[in-house]
Amino acid sequence: MRDLAGTKEACSINTATLGFQKPIRQTIDAIARAGFRYASPWRRELKDESIKAVAKHLSDAKIAVPGYYRSTFLPAADKAQRRFAIDDNKRAMDDAITLGAEYFPLVVGSLHEGSKNITEARKQVLDALPELLEYARRNGIKLAIEPLHPVYAADRSCILSLSHALDVCDAIEGTTREPSLGILFDVYHCWWDHNLPHDIARAGAQRRIFGFHVNDWLRNTNDILNDRGMMGDGVIDLRGIRGMVEAAGFNGPVEVEIFSANDWWKKPLEETLKIAAARLATST
Amino acid sequence: MRDLAGTKEACSINTATLGFQKPIRQTIDAIARAGFRYASPWRRELKDESIKAVAKHLSDAKIAVPGYYRSTFLPAADKAQRRFAIDDNKRAMDDAITLGAEYFPLVVGSLHEGSKNITEARKQVLDALPELLEYARRNGIKLAIEPLHPVYAADRSCILSLSHALDVCDAIEGTTREPSLGILFDVYHCWWDHNLPHDIARAGAQRRIFGFHVNDWLRNTNDILNDRGMMGDGVIDLRGIRGMVEAAGFNGPVEVEIFSANDWWKKPLEETLKIAAARLATST
Repeated sequence: MRDLAGTKEACSINTATLGFQKPIRQTIDAIARAGFRYASPWRRELKDESIKAVAKHLSDAKIAVPGYYRSTFLPAADKAQRRFAIDDNKRAMDDAITLGAEYFPLVVGSLHEGSKNITEARKQVLDALPELLEYARRNGIKLAIEPLHPVYAADRSCILSLSHALDVCDAIEGTTREPSLGILFDVYHCWWDHNLPHDIARAGAQRRIFGFHVNDWLRNTNDILNDRGMMGDGVIDLRGIRGMVEAAGFNGPVEVEIFSANDWWKKPLEETLKIAAARLATST
Repeated sequence: MRDLAGTKEACSINTATLGFQKPIRQTIDAIARAGFRYASPWRRELKDESIKAVAKHLSDAKIAVPGYYRSTFLPAADKAQRRFAIDDNKRAMDDAITLGAEYFPLVVGSLHEGSKNITEARKQVLDALPELLEYARRNGIKLAIEPLHPVYAADRSCILSLSHALDVCDAIEGTTREPSLGILFDVYHCWWDHNLPHDIARAGAQRRIFGFHVNDWLRNTNDILNDRGMMGDGVIDLRGIRGMVEAAGFNGPVEVEIFSANDWWKKPLEETLKIAAARLATST
């Protein structure tokens, strides 16, 4: 297991952690000044930007990009909307490639408005993935399924555990030594799962752990979407889980991603980055 | 699959659905007047009552009791507190037996204050269960583990899926044709699980489905503890799940349990009971 003390250059900041307070160039500069060498931006930050110019800004700041956040939900009420989602994800992958991202994170979506059929949502995801995977492979980027916490089952993801995400990878890509389809493991979503040791080992043996997110689950969460904690402030055994993930072969950047509308998003970027660096060392 | 239209006498009201607005006798009378023949009360409602007198009141009202809610959390910081929890659960089982309850529901608890070790919490649950099961068997009541939704992993339960609950049953009781340890299946906690068809069939084959709770998951849940929906108002495929549970052999009362601080708990008991009866028929 790596020692993260004094190695923040091996860690990544997902820009969501900083609350989208500043334009992307200022955000990148703040992350670079704080000593990080990786940052994962969001599409919402780049929608009015030249992707090439932002790519150059990242490169000039010596910031590499693990992932570009994130996919458009795949399940939808009709065929035209499902077609739109696939094409929209291809466009986002093009931008991810321009930014030099290693993977494109898939938050797959779940029940469309009016639906109670999560089995159908899962089928629609399985139907869409082969085309997306073929496009990703052809263009040289990986796809990382991010299983979400089951609390998001209604509207954000019908893939809600690491084991299910791995089953989907197996179903779509089969066995391979160099997978293009893998998983993005976020402690917030998966920490509770009693099968975690087994599933992390399985993901590692299949070389499918493409990304790793840290944050914390606050004991008294008051908003299920935007009340995530800084590492060390909650109940997750972060060191134990990171140990398992690294023992399974993951050696990419440890990425901080914290949705926190009423706490961290209100602080100056510099303060959040400083504390994140410290907590990576002491509490992760 | 049973037709629940016009058969509310085969259904049960968990008194939590009515928000503990009235003393237990009035609550029982309202449930009986509404035509239900089953009700599951809570310990908090009976703490200043003679259990025997309430048992007689239930019997006079021709109301049978599926479960008496619920266990004291088992994991704790020290041995004395863990001993207290076991003894307190035995006392509650005594009362459950006096009330004629078929099972005592176990919400097992999770991390004690200050702990980040969910594996240790699980071990403490496994350590406590044999003594509780022996006491339950000796006194003629069943124990029903209620796996909770993973959103409650920090403070309420370290058993968070049907499959894990069944693994615990197997570990504690082994294979038997007449289990005294089983599960209480609540759609709110388990609806999202992609292994549900398999796990329900397994639970049924082992005769371990002791109780079945219905309610609904609201798409835009604003409070994870007390914003559950009335059947039909949310996204759960209630009819599909009830079909699986009944196909697996469950033929006990379908019990309505809705925690809803800002909606149903503010309505008159009579209105909630009337709508619950209607929704059992149309949307369950």
